[in-house]
Parts: sequence; C-alpha cells; structure tokens
Amino acid sequence: MSKTYKVEGMSCGGCASSVEQAIKTAAQEARVEIKLEGGLVTVTGVEDDDLVKQAVEDAGFTFAGIA
Amino acid sequence: MSKTYKVEGMSCGGCASSVEQAIKTAAQEARVEIKLEGGLVTVTGVEDDDLVKQAVEDAGFTFAGIA
Repeated sequence: MSKTYKVEGMSCGGCASSVEQAIKTAAQEARVEIKLEGGLVTVTGVEDDDLVKQAVEDAGFTFAGIA
Repeated sequence: MSKTYKVEGMSCGGCASSVEQAIKTAAQEARVEIKLEGGLVTVTGVEDDDLVKQAVEDAGFTFAGIA
C-alpha cells in the first residue's frame, strides 16, 4: 500500500533526494517516489503517517498532510 | 568553538535549510551557518564530528570531511 503526502519547501532535486533519504533512514523498508512539481511524496511500505511527518520535518521541510 | 565541514549535494536554499535543520535536530544546541557556494557548513557548539556526519548523511547529502 502506498500513501501520498504533500510536502512544502522542496525546490530542487537535492531537496527531493533529501526527503527521500530522510524517510528511508526513518523506515528502511520504505520506497519513496517524489514529484517535485506539486510537492508530492508517495511512500510505499510504511503505515505510520507520523513517522513520515517526523522524518520530513527533521529534514527541514514542511509536512502538509495527506495529498 | 566552530568547525567547518564540506558537504556535497546542496544545490539550493532548500537543501541548505535541510542540512541546517538535520544538524539542529541531532544537536539542539548547534548553531549552523551554510555557504551554498563551496558547500561549506560551519557548526558552532557541537564537538562531535560523527554526529554532524550522521545528520548530514541521513538528510541525503554527502559529508566530505572537515573543510
């Protein structure tokens, strides 16, 4: 199952890979797909929204909820 | 005391604030100053290079040592 979240503050590929890496560090089983335009982050293999939220925020981006 | 590290992969202000936030999450007492050009990250108030390295890598950037 996958969930798509809205993340604000990603403005380049470096930002996107930062968010991806932060989520994977928090949940090694995660698969992460990011659409920079629209700030959409799709996470597969993680059920815990709060874990994703925390990882995104700890990496300096704004978690804006489920897309 | 401050130390300056070389970090690769930061290509915009979003990347820079991500690295700053990741270090501050790992060490709340840290003060962080970043020069995007040159990839220089100056950290004040943290003695542990490994803590900085880990935070940078967990945020998806490359820690390239002490500058």
